[in-house]
Amino acid sequence: MRIRVIHGPNLNLLGLREPGLYGTDTLEDLNRKIEELAHTLGIEVEVFQSNSEGEIVDLIQQCVGHADALVINPAAYTHYSIAIRDAVAAIRLPVVEVHLSNIHAREEFRHRSVVAPVACGQIAGFGSNSYLLGLQAAKQIVEEARS
Amino acid sequence: MRIRVIHGPNLNLLGLREPGLYGTDTLEDLNRKIEELAHTLGIEVEVFQSNSEGEIVDLIQQCVGHADALVINPAAYTHYSIAIRDAVAAIRLPVVEVHLSNIHAREEFRHRSVVAPVACGQIAGFGSNSYLLGLQAAKQIVEEARS
Amino acid sequence: MRIRVIHGPNLNLLGLREPGLYGTDTLEDLNRKIEELAHTLGIEVEVFQSNSEGEIVDLIQQCVGHADALVINPAAYTHYSIAIRDAVAAIRLPVVEVHLSNIHAREEFRHRSVVAPVACGQIAGFGSNSYLLGLQAAKQIVEEARS
Amino acid sequence: MRIRVIHGPNLNLLGLREPGLYGTDTLEDLNRKIEELAHTLGIEVEVFQSNSEGEIVDLIQQCVGHADALVINPAAYTHYSIAIRDAVAAIRLPVVEVHLSNIHAREEFRHRSVVAPVACGQIAGFGSNSYLLGLQAAKQIVEEARS
Amino acid sequence: MRIRVIHGPNLNLLGLREPGLYGTDTLEDLNRKIEELAHTLGIEVEVFQSNSEGEIVDLIQQCVGHADALVINPAAYTHYSIAIRDAVAAIRLPVVEVHLSNIHAREEFRHRSVVAPVACGQIAGFGSNSYLLGLQAAKQIVEEARS
Amino acid sequence: MRIRVIHGPNLNLLGLREPGLYGTDTLEDLNRKIEELAHTLGIEVEVFQSNSEGEIVDLIQQCVGHADALVINPAAYTHYSIAIRDAVAAIRLPVVEVHLSNIHAREEFRHRSVVAPVACGQIAGFGSNSYLLGLQAAKQIVEEARS
Amino acid sequence: MRIRVIHGPNLNLLGLREPGLYGTDTLEDLNRKIEELAHTLGIEVEVFQSNSEGEIVDLIQQCVGHADALVINPAAYTHYSIAIRDAVAAIRLPVVEVHLSNIHAREEFRHRSVVAPVACGQIAGFGSNSYLLGLQAAKQIVEEARS
Amino acid sequence: MRIRVIHGPNLNLLGLREPGLYGTDTLEDLNRKIEELAHTLGIEVEVFQSNSEGEIVDLIQQCVGHADALVINPAAYTHYSIAIRDAVAAIRLPVVEVHLSNIHAREEFRHRSVVAPVACGQIAGFGSNSYLLGLQAAKQIVEEARS
Amino acid sequence: MRIRVIHGPNLNLLGLREPGLYGTDTLEDLNRKIEELAHTLGIEVEVFQSNSEGEIVDLIQQCVGHADALVINPAAYTHYSIAIRDAVAAIRLPVVEVHLSNIHAREEFRHRSVVAPVACGQIAGFGSNSYLLGLQAAKQIVEEARS
Amino acid sequence: MRIRVIHGPNLNLLGLREPGLYGTDTLEDLNRKIEELAHTLGIEVEVFQSNSEGEIVDLIQQCVGHADALVINPAAYTHYSIAIRDAVAAIRLPVVEVHLSNIHAREEFRHRSVVAPVACGQIAGFGSNSYLLGLQAAKQIVEEARS
Amino acid sequence: MRIRVIHGPNLNLLGLREPGLYGTDTLEDLNRKIEELAHTLGIEVEVFQSNSEGEIVDLIQQCVGHADALVINPAAYTHYSIAIRDAVAAIRLPVVEVHLSNIHAREEFRHRSVVAPVACGQIAGFGSNSYLLGLQAAKQIVEEARS
Amino acid sequence: MRIRVIHGPNLNLLGLREPGLYGTDTLEDLNRKIEELAHTLGIEVEVFQSNSEGEIVDLIQQCVGHADALVINPAAYTHYSIAIRDAVAAIRLPVVEVHLSNIHAREEFRHRSVVAPVACGQIAGFGSNSYLLGLQAAKQIVEEARS
Repeated sequence: MRIRVIHGPNLNLLGLREPGLYGTDTLEDLNRKIEELAHTLGIEVEVFQSNSEGEIVDLIQQCVGHADALVINPAAYTHYSIAIRDAVAAIRLPVVEVHLSNIHAREEFRHRSVVAPVACGQIAGFGSNSYLLGLQAAKQIVEEARS
Repeated sequence: MRIRVIHGPNLNLLGLREPGLYGTDTLEDLNRKIEELAHTLGIEVEVFQSNSEGEIVDLIQQCVGHADALVINPAAYTHYSIAIRDAVAAIRLPVVEVHLSNIHAREEFRHRSVVAPVACGQIAGFGSNSYLLGLQAAKQIVEEARS
Repeated sequence: MRIRVIHGPNLNLLGLREPGLYGTDTLEDLNRKIEELAHTLGIEVEVFQSNSEGEIVDLIQQCVGHADALVINPAAYTHYSIAIRDAVAAIRLPVVEVHLSNIHAREEFRHRSVVAPVACGQIAGFGSNSYLLGLQAAKQIVEEARS
Repeated sequence: MRIRVIHGPNLNLLGLREPGLYGTDTLEDLNRKIEELAHTLGIEVEVFQSNSEGEIVDLIQQCVGHADALVINPAAYTHYSIAIRDAVAAIRLPVVEVHLSNIHAREEFRHRSVVAPVACGQIAGFGSNSYLLGLQAAKQIVEEARS
Repeated sequence: MRIRVIHGPNLNLLGLREPGLYGTDTLEDLNRKIEELAHTLGIEVEVFQSNSEGEIVDLIQQCVGHADALVINPAAYTHYSIAIRDAVAAIRLPVVEVHLSNIHAREEFRHRSVVAPVACGQIAGFGSNSYLLGLQAAKQIVEEARS
Repeated sequence: MRIRVIHGPNLNLLGLREPGLYGTDTLEDLNRKIEELAHTLGIEVEVFQSNSEGEIVDLIQQCVGHADALVINPAAYTHYSIAIRDAVAAIRLPVVEVHLSNIHAREEFRHRSVVAPVACGQIAGFGSNSYLLGLQAAKQIVEEARS
Repeated sequence: MRIRVIHGPNLNLLGLREPGLYGTDTLEDLNRKIEELAHTLGIEVEVFQSNSEGEIVDLIQQCVGHADALVINPAAYTHYSIAIRDAVAAIRLPVVEVHLSNIHAREEFRHRSVVAPVACGQIAGFGSNSYLLGLQAAKQIVEEARS
Repeated sequence: MRIRVIHGPNLNLLGLREPGLYGTDTLEDLNRKIEELAHTLGIEVEVFQSNSEGEIVDLIQQCVGHADALVINPAAYTHYSIAIRDAVAAIRLPVVEVHLSNIHAREEFRHRSVVAPVACGQIAGFGSNSYLLGLQAAKQIVEEARS
Repeated sequence: MRIRVIHGPNLNLLGLREPGLYGTDTLEDLNRKIEELAHTLGIEVEVFQSNSEGEIVDLIQQCVGHADALVINPAAYTHYSIAIRDAVAAIRLPVVEVHLSNIHAREEFRHRSVVAPVACGQIAGFGSNSYLLGLQAAKQIVEEARS
Repeated sequence: MRIRVIHGPNLNLLGLREPGLYGTDTLEDLNRKIEELAHTLGIEVEVFQSNSEGEIVDLIQQCVGHADALVINPAAYTHYSIAIRDAVAAIRLPVVEVHLSNIHAREEFRHRSVVAPVACGQIAGFGSNSYLLGLQAAKQIVEEARS
Repeated sequence: MRIRVIHGPNLNLLGLREPGLYGTDTLEDLNRKIEELAHTLGIEVEVFQSNSEGEIVDLIQQCVGHADALVINPAAYTHYSIAIRDAVAAIRLPVVEVHLSNIHAREEFRHRSVVAPVACGQIAGFGSNSYLLGLQAAKQIVEEARS
Repeated sequence: MRIRVIHGPNLNLLGLREPGLYGTDTLEDLNRKIEELAHTLGIEVEVFQSNSEGEIVDLIQQCVGHADALVINPAAYTHYSIAIRDAVAAIRLPVVEVHLSNIHAREEFRHRSVVAPVACGQIAGFGSNSYLLGLQAAKQIVEEARS
């Protein structure tokens, strides 16, 4: 089983950007944890980061035929990128939306996700752990669909 | 470590109620899974269900001194119970909000949670698995706070 | 055929509370009329009143296996109780929503019913008669479903 | 006692139009049921259908001196015709608003009735039966006013 | 003269819950102050607390025949309980709404009270003192009505 | 100079309909006053009433080549008839909107006129006198345009 | 009969300010027309202009005992001065609101008048003539009240 | 193949009304172009214009059994006539909504069509050409449905 | 201890203006009660009234160095004067907002106070007594801050 | 004459993505139809697809000097890309907005186009045919401008 | 060249009021900086402060014939004073709106300026420097208009 | 001191695009002015333009370690790019938002900036001069932070 993980805009600054909100782990630290868990779970992961909405749409589309599921943190794009929403809806694979911070406890405009209605589910507020829980969730959905 | 799990209104009908949406597991099946995972994780759980907002407020308040964290599915109350929100905010323990269905993909009025802004985070859309992921998340928050 | 009738909050004050709006009949008077009509129609009724949202959810859930239909006046809860809405949707029985007063002619916030979208229909504005018409409507739906 | 019944726009297509929503009875079938019940109740009915807002206003105004009450299904006009609302308010007779379908369970814009605030009450969701219940309701209001 | 005082949900946690916002007095401290003032004013008080909306509705209804006025802090229910509003409107006694904190200086959703429009008035923001001022206000309204 | 006067829906009930709001003058009384003033001002008037939006659109269109100005009370249609608005805009003649009652002091939905933005001006709240003032206003606009 | 006329803020610039919108008459020209008509109608007028909301409130209050009616163009204050609205409501005299331009055809925020709901009526869009029509309207209201 | 074309209110003024917006072609010029294209396409057309909402509902209903598709410009009714929407939905034929002007570039209230959600599609902004494109579109839908 | 009391616009008409709403006490009667209570409480009061927003801002600013607290009824300005709000926030003294009437039971636009979020608290609905309770509240806040 | 055609995000998935909604034609099939029609019409077309908003802005800007008109399906960007809107407005060429599906019949957020107000017109709901009709429309606008 | 500078309400408290937000410079310090820059730029300035909306309207009107441009900080009035907006629009001189703090980063209601749409531009967030930049901007607009 | 200047989408068309709104200077003209002023101020500037949101995010992130401040005109992205907002917030450098045109005087949707709340301040409406004032403002913030 192969699961793609996509980090949205500004996540390359992780650890540098507002550590009170996002923690002191860098993106590399986070990716290492993801890979460790993947190894434990016996699955393959491929991880990408992009600041560009169009590139993220490309990365989502490429899942077709290459991955069994997608774990995505659309970051700022969560709240307005209908292009990403449409890509998520189009690929017809299990997609889990994750967020480091509890978006429901931040500015009003961050409460709404335009992506969530076409994802399987959403996990928000657990720091790096949101990704790890998301990976497990994605794996289970794939397994259930196969069984 | 002891974690309380609270099921909100109508969850006692689980398995009977709209199985297309909520699955065919009964509340007992779900509770069994929760207890199995708790056992695996080496933690204690105590599980409650109530249809009454006031009773749920009581159940939340009783966590103080009795539990290290709370995993709660406020169900219908998610969307309007400021009383439950205030109880969650008052107990000053890690609280994880979980939902069986992806509330962000349902009626507009189910997208908003008045509880989430005072919880640590929210997990929605993974069926029984939402609870199991929530239990792990809660355990980790307690462990991190202790470390 | 057995039909449950549930009176929501403050209806126990009927006759005492704003008689200009709700008439001078007490709840007992109203219940007597309901029972008389039931007798005429050859159906059994069981009537409950509660001020508690949780209790009303319980009363609705108990219909399963005990009643063929439900006539309910959710009173104040009409306008915000998603818990009652979810219970009504869950029991998969014919449910008729009734109101003594014409809720559409009162304060703006009373125009919206969160229960009506999952009920069969709504009858409002005919005083005690709303219940009697509701009982007939419920009976007919049951009969049609059986035929 | 004479009661006028007015069917609003597109009700002449009844039975042909979205039978899943409105049933397979034609307008003639419905009118026959209305007349049968009128006969049983010992009242006279006169039934009209029009697709024109202005004509419906005329039909409402003509009630004065010719009918004791009005049962009206304003259909599409329910949601925006202030002209019909003003006519209903002007005639100072008992008016019962009826709907075949449960308008509260349909598109958001069908939840609001601009007519209901000036009618005695509203009955919605019971198919042909909405009219029959409405006829009874109207009769009782006239009788109560007379007593 | 007898005045009932009702404390809404989560007020049993007073002194424990967000002391920066609500002060360090416990509910017992507050009740002692209320009783002392009642003694000074020569009036009788009976004090209740409940987390349950339905129970609070019951407690309000019981005022009829047992109390001359009501001082109520509906806490979280202030902002959505139409059931409590209807009970307040139904008892036809002087009702004074009080709040420890200045609800107008908190989250947007706490600015609106659905109870205030049917109460005599509202006192908010003076800590324990809100209750003591409310008791005086209630006493004066009763006296004026008697004179 | 010829000025057309159009009375909108339900104005044929004038004097019968809510006399507290609209006065006891009938439409004939009002028309007599209009004709008397026209005579005094040395202008010709032609007066129409219709309950039908389409007919009113026709009546407005016919002004072209037949009248120098239009005084119109669109009544209920004031608030939603974009068809009447478009007709008023299309004829390119001075149009004065008048109302018997002060629409700004009535229900919220009567505060907005969709016609006024394309009329010269609006006169509301002076009973029959609104028409008489409107006639003078229309006459002066025609005279100014001619001078 | 004495009628007070109040010009609101920036009307002292009349003739200088946006002549395309407000015409080329200065405030003095306008006041001369008002006085001429007053003379013709056999009434006394006293005319004031102020840019200050507080001063306008004073000028309105002074009507009590000094004038039989008020014709006021609240200009910019029309749209937000609840202080002026309260003064108009308080003096219990006939008040006619007038506007040079058709406020309903300008920016959205100029469509709403907070004063109109407590005035007798509103005349807008007829340039200087709005005042002259307003004076006639005010005179007639006073005469009708006296008769 | 027979296609009905319906022109809504005020389109009879075409060429006279705001030529900057709608062009200088009269309705006859437009109808001639429609007939010429129909001839070229080998289809029959029948063209109607009405200012009356009710009449347009009638004209739409008559399509059943008489026409294979409908091209309609509901003009002003586009934005509020639920009666026309319901007629369009009821006839179960291909319906193409057309507009001379680009309604999305005009006043806010013209951006929304209540008819479009039940039509096949919408063509707006191409002057007379909108109808000609609409005719082709309608023809193709009929042909595809037949094939 | 010195406490300033400021009455906002139109309060100089007290006793004359809508006595059903504001009572029959004049402003002088009210001021006498305030001074009597001040005497009893052993504090000094200085009382002002102004209809002018700017003057009220001046009066608030002058508190600095001259008063220990402020009791203010901003009347109409309550609902929109950000200038008064900013002055209240700037002086950094205890400020108590009072209202004679229950503003939460009046027109929708009177429910919102732009001043309350920067005041200590709000007392509304107790007639003259609102001021007296406000004076006590202000005194207690000053004493607590000193202790 | 040269017309550029731009396909927005996710259109490269055409035929794969939700065929019930978008049909089974692939983007290549669609482009072939466009080129065939172009050939028939005697015009040149150049066709582009991009998932990136910035690239689409570039593609639009490049029309200046290279194309006579633009046919664009902004897909998801239709609803929020002010950058694309500004590019469309800047190039001062005829621009036709097309959509495969009837966006007015889909989710609420797809009803609004931020691009349409600066385009010549919009064609939506006719599948591949929307492009072909759009090409004709664009050609005619260019021809008319030239004539 | 002469430029008027107007400071709105509460700016006389500068340096005293919320120094964290507005800095520790007093109004005199600020005025000294303004005058120094004016001297450097070779222009004359005249500086005013007022807490009164009406007085500010007067001060703006007096610019006509006395100043070549206006730099204004309307402070609290920025957000609701249509009277100041109308004065700014009326004087037909270059007007630059300045703010000490970044109003777009403060409470929601401070994001909107009713004055900015009729000013040349807005400078906000640079403390005293906002005025100095505004002075330069105003000077350049006057010079460009002259050249 | 080094300051980065970023021009957002469509600014490469400057001088070509709507010169009435944006002036006739090309982007090169503007950049020359920026460099001249930088030279005068003794600072280094590096200037970039991009139509791509993702690229602009990259350009902002690169400021860290390379520039002391940022002057940015996010153009169309101003109004919806939370990705750019997050990048601006993340770099923790002084950021000045500038606009050529007065965005507060244009379409409603251009009044709101999602970037401004995390920038130091905003300068809008002064054409090329907005950048030059922004450069000065940025320089001063850097100098103050250093002093």
